[in-house]
Amino acid sequence: MVPLRSVDWDDGAVVIVDQTLLPNELRHLRITNVSHLVGAIKRLAVRGAPSIGVAGALGVALAARTHPPADQAQAFDDDVHALRSARPTAVNLARAVDRAAGARGGGYHAILAEGLAIRDEEIASCWSMGIYGSELLIELTGERPQRLMTICNTGGLAAVERGTALGVIQTMLERGLLAEAIPLETRPLLQGGRLTTWELARMGAPFRLIVDSAGPFLLAQGAADAVLVGADRVAANGDTANKVGSFSLALGARNAGVPFIVVAPESSMDLDTPSGEMIEIEDRGSEEVTRAWRETIAPLGTKAINPAFDITPHEMITAVVTDRRVIRLDRGEKLSEVPLGPLRTSHRRSAI
Amino acid sequence: MVPLRSVDWDDGAVVIVDQTLLPNELRHLRITNVSHLVGAIKRLAVRGAPSIGVAGALGVALAARTHPPADQAQAFDDDVHALRSARPTAVNLARAVDRAAGARGGGYHAILAEGLAIRDEEIASCWSMGIYGSELLIELTGERPQRLMTICNTGGLAAVERGTALGVIQTMLERGLLAEAIPLETRPLLQGGRLTTWELARMGAPFRLIVDSAGPFLLAQGAADAVLVGADRVAANGDTANKVGSFSLALGARNAGVPFIVVAPESSMDLDTPSGEMIEIEDRGSEEVTRAWRETIAPLGTKAINPAFDITPHEMITAVVTDRRVIRLDRGEKLSEVPLGPLRTSHRRSAI
Repeated sequence: MVPLRSVDWDDGAVVIVDQTLLPNELRHLRITNVSHLVGAIKRLAVRGAPSIGVAGALGVALAARTHPPADQAQAFDDDVHALRSARPTAVNLARAVDRAAGARGGGYHAILAEGLAIRDEEIASCWSMGIYGSELLIELTGERPQRLMTICNTGGLAAVERGTALGVIQTMLERGLLAEAIPLETRPLLQGGRLTTWELARMGAPFRLIVDSAGPFLLAQGAADAVLVGADRVAANGDTANKVGSFSLALGARNAGVPFIVVAPESSMDLDTPSGEMIEIEDRGSEEVTRAWRETIAPLGTKAINPAFDITPHEMITAVVTDRRVIRLDRGEKLSEVPLGPLRTSHRRSAI
Repeated sequence: MVPLRSVDWDDGAVVIVDQTLLPNELRHLRITNVSHLVGAIKRLAVRGAPSIGVAGALGVALAARTHPPADQAQAFDDDVHALRSARPTAVNLARAVDRAAGARGGGYHAILAEGLAIRDEEIASCWSMGIYGSELLIELTGERPQRLMTICNTGGLAAVERGTALGVIQTMLERGLLAEAIPLETRPLLQGGRLTTWELARMGAPFRLIVDSAGPFLLAQGAADAVLVGADRVAANGDTANKVGSFSLALGARNAGVPFIVVAPESSMDLDTPSGEMIEIEDRGSEEVTRAWRETIAPLGTKAINPAFDITPHEMITAVVTDRRVIRLDRGEKLSEVPLGPLRTSHRRSAI
């Protein structure tokens, strides 16, 4: 499988895969100004907490190129602000933008170097999560091929080159331990049906797609050995904001006695937010719900409630897997107390 | 609002509203042979347990007209068998077909009279369910405007003229006690997004549409006072087969401490089936999932698991409301023990 990067830097431009066109078309967009990039983030052409973090950081380099911070501080600051607030829920975006902007003293080149470092760190971090996560799965359910349910898209498209939750599934596949992936289609924007299926097919993984509401029932019927989800933000107490539907799956996993595992990099851990109640839930408006992909389905004028995310309470989560550690919430472990371990690299990486 | 019948008999033909065209177009189909009717049932042009029961019974009249049972018993029996097995999950279809076919001794006219009686009984039964259901809601959550969550379409389209679960919501509206309906869109076929929204708009009810996976989370956030669902079949112990996603909502309602109420006519009560484990779950194939309404969304070749129904265990159900009684499962009441009450008629019916 040819590696693919959902977001990268090339010769003065942020290059992204336009995820709104998948699975029908694989098209790259070259973006050279901040307002276009903000638009691309808002319309989810680039999406997934790690990918939008990298896009935001590289966007600061675009801003510095157009408005050198030493000379045009106000214009530069405006760009940084626009990037920072393009999406509200994921902590990665604000954090990556702030980190890149923090290098403003060194000018464009220093900012770009920071953005590229964030990109490389996200890629390395997914390899590490794959190792921590697959070892946890083996510990929890045995070293045998597993059936793994997941929601939304948490693959390379969401996390630059390799995934978070889907990265663990990919690692299981590479280890010969994936019996079947069961992705939820993930309405309203169908990231699971459009993107995760595309990535699973690309990696040669066996899988069957389901509608979101079938997840908890199929778990009760014994269809999966574990549920793996990503996170947009994990609060200090372990409460996790992720794609709407994660909460349902957590209820279903608890009911079925199946592990529910959150996989997200340390950059998504937010110790400054004590609990999920403090996390802003983005309501993305009615149109995403009244449409099914590109077609209107509901009667004209239909209003919707459209929370893009939900909050899964920490007591429903078995463990949080990061690139540096596993926090066993089911054993009462706390994010603030479990020490960071090493960033791990796969010995199999060169063979893929 | 002009009354509308999803299925009726007119001058030698079964007339149905083609529900696959809604909400874009209200078109009636005149069907004069059994194989067309079986096709219409299979492709969900007519759908909803009571409506397909009536369609099946009237289909037996079509069969008797084409193949008089006294002369062409085998051809008549083949038609009856085809009607009976057009859909496997709802008990109404087989029961209504058997009842109409039971009048074969009286020939075509007797069979038609039986089919028309079933139609009229289903209509009367929805009025009665509306009264029993609204009184239960008032008892459970107080006589004040309520926010009611529901799944799939259980309105007049599903139940000939007036609905089961949506009939209760309509009754609450007529009593001035509906603050808001919250329909789930109900993937894969979007009966909630396409049909329930259309019926709610037609009746002038305030409502907001949600994606299925947002239901349990919004319940946890206090968005609704109760959940009302229909049923394709209620087993003797109260386990309920209904549209996939009902189980998720029941988990969500239990988690939120909100009543979860099944509304279905006595014709959906199946005392011959001891529990939900014995109910066949129809898997309707991959294509419904890989498509979102009329557009393909998943990559070519994607396979799906597509249970059309799920089973909600009786211990997650507050009450079953029928046209003749309320069975409080939360108080340990049993279907086999609660006596039938009167079929109730609304004193407000003539005013509507």
